[in-house]
Amino acid sequence: MANAKQLSGAGLRGQVAGKTALSTVGKTGSGLTYRGYDVKDLAASCEFDEVAFLILKGELPNKSELAQYKTKLKSMRALPQALKDVLERIPASAHPMDVMRTGCSMLGNLETEQRFAEQQDITDRMLALFPGMINYWYNYSHHNKQIEVETDANSTAEQFLWTLHGVKPTALHTQVMEASLILYAEHEFNASTFTARVCASTLSDMHSCITGAIGSLRGPLHGGANEAAMELIENMKDPEDAEQKLLGMLERKEKIMGFGHAVYAESDPRNAVIKAWSEKLAKANGDTRLYDVSERCEAVMWREKKLFCNADFFHASAYNYMGIPTKLFTPIFVCSRLTGWAAHVMEQRADNRIIRPSADYVGVEPRAVKPIGER
Amino acid sequence: MANAKQLSGAGLRGQVAGKTALSTVGKTGSGLTYRGYDVKDLAASCEFDEVAFLILKGELPNKSELAQYKTKLKSMRALPQALKDVLERIPASAHPMDVMRTGCSMLGNLETEQRFAEQQDITDRMLALFPGMINYWYNYSHHNKQIEVETDANSTAEQFLWTLHGVKPTALHTQVMEASLILYAEHEFNASTFTARVCASTLSDMHSCITGAIGSLRGPLHGGANEAAMELIENMKDPEDAEQKLLGMLERKEKIMGFGHAVYAESDPRNAVIKAWSEKLAKANGDTRLYDVSERCEAVMWREKKLFCNADFFHASAYNYMGIPTKLFTPIFVCSRLTGWAAHVMEQRADNRIIRPSADYVGVEPRAVKPIGER
Repeated sequence: MANAKQLSGAGLRGQVAGKTALSTVGKTGSGLTYRGYDVKDLAASCEFDEVAFLILKGELPNKSELAQYKTKLKSMRALPQALKDVLERIPASAHPMDVMRTGCSMLGNLETEQRFAEQQDITDRMLALFPGMINYWYNYSHHNKQIEVETDANSTAEQFLWTLHGVKPTALHTQVMEASLILYAEHEFNASTFTARVCASTLSDMHSCITGAIGSLRGPLHGGANEAAMELIENMKDPEDAEQKLLGMLERKEKIMGFGHAVYAESDPRNAVIKAWSEKLAKANGDTRLYDVSERCEAVMWREKKLFCNADFFHASAYNYMGIPTKLFTPIFVCSRLTGWAAHVMEQRADNRIIRPSADYVGVEPRAVKPIGER
Repeated sequence: MANAKQLSGAGLRGQVAGKTALSTVGKTGSGLTYRGYDVKDLAASCEFDEVAFLILKGELPNKSELAQYKTKLKSMRALPQALKDVLERIPASAHPMDVMRTGCSMLGNLETEQRFAEQQDITDRMLALFPGMINYWYNYSHHNKQIEVETDANSTAEQFLWTLHGVKPTALHTQVMEASLILYAEHEFNASTFTARVCASTLSDMHSCITGAIGSLRGPLHGGANEAAMELIENMKDPEDAEQKLLGMLERKEKIMGFGHAVYAESDPRNAVIKAWSEKLAKANGDTRLYDVSERCEAVMWREKKLFCNADFFHASAYNYMGIPTKLFTPIFVCSRLTGWAAHVMEQRADNRIIRPSADYVGVEPRAVKPIGER
């Protein structure tokens, strides 16, 4: 539009694109809050299914509400046969985020959201089904196993580990996964959430919104940092080796993932939580190498660059200690962030205007079409 | 963010969210331009494959460039067996836009974009494959036919009609489809294109960007207007009946699709083009009812509401005259707009900053987590 307002920063940085009651990021003194609760408090006292309930419905559940919600989720884990057929046709070489995106999209063909009144059930179904879905594909394509996804797992966190490994996880591993899913559940207008809201603003269905968000989270500037952190630390033999390697990378000005944040200025409130869990896992494991090199990386990056670890960095070692293949790190992020995405879709629908910005035209002036013979 | 700038309108209306050299919408005196060319001129002198080339590569092709491009596209029409398997598992009751979204996403598993250097080939593959993909699903699910998608069609427009009906289309029908695809090819920062750009800004792959855009186009506030227009006119017996029905709807303040536009103030430059083609089709068909009632609708809406037909309204009768099922109208939009989406993705990648706006927090104040027994 000729008379559109010119904004200052690229990427809409610092520009308000809408309202939310879901979270605050980087507000002084509080770090990250979901519905008013500090994420550190939630991670210390709750399991993920409680936080999913909070994000989606506005309040933490009481005992009977939580029991009822868990029973509902447990009843929704089965994969439709047509979805299994699709997953079995995706090769082992595929990007696991492409698998998540395709599985979510396929589900939309089989269990289409017909009315917005169904939005909570549609979301709960994805919450219940996604962990089994990605692990069904992983086990089939990598180990030629058709796994049972209707386990006795008592929570989303336990369901992920159970369907991945085929056995009930230890209490410690389940606890870490509860905390991890809580830390990743919601983060205001990041790129994937904003994708979901733009899609929702056309009044499209929930599966379209979540499919689009998965596609955005797939991008290396967004969701892939914990995988990149793993690639960084896995070849570090000990803290001394970590220090040398990192100093070399800094000298060569190589990109180092898992540090700093677009919104947080001084620290990422999620780091302390997952770091403590990573340390517990290291001790339980007996081999503390990954934790030790991670700690040294943290010290070096702070000393040399004043860069702090973000949520992703200690997730790498924590997930690795639980036997999670690196390529499944970002799909776990999906299983968690789904709650934030869906809540944002619901919020957008409740007070909607189509999101349709303008562009600053920098192309050629008007010109006439020449007949093809004269070009 | 606490200090984020508050914008005036909801939905980023009138706010510049980035730069583009691809098109102008509603600039005084020009209506709609692609790369500087008026869309009316392009629709009058070009076929769609020329315009796709223009949008994606910046200049109209000469004869040999066009011939080469068509040969390339023709060689890329085959559907991978795994994609056919997926399409065969999507029921006839599915929303055809969910089929497009899933087919595009599945293709991303099978032919993943590994480097941005592949972006043109990845886009050309979708351009060549999408018409056959949707018609493979349509014919299989509705008529139990496994169609051959590697036809002798000489253009994307002809390929769509050929794979839908299983015969070479008439010259008139191909001509109309060329014009229709040109009209829908590009439209600046609309919601689906903006979805693609947000996704691209995380440096995600092309299939993710296009999959997300399809999901946004699916929304009834965006892509579904020509289908809604068809539902409106198909039950109108003649112009008199059309007038009565429309007046009744206006009196009951019912929503009437296919009129007015979020950006254009006085007319939609695409309407005159498709209206002229609809009239030609009506005469060739012998039964002019749909055209006649459409024309009366246009007159009534202008007289009563000063609302003009947008690109979608006369598309309904035109597509219907060509025997296209109403549910495939929006998928045709995808086969065309894919060019604009992909060109925007390429443009975003060439000068990228992650699109990450802020939100205005309107939720509850900080609060403490109560133990579950006390809730």
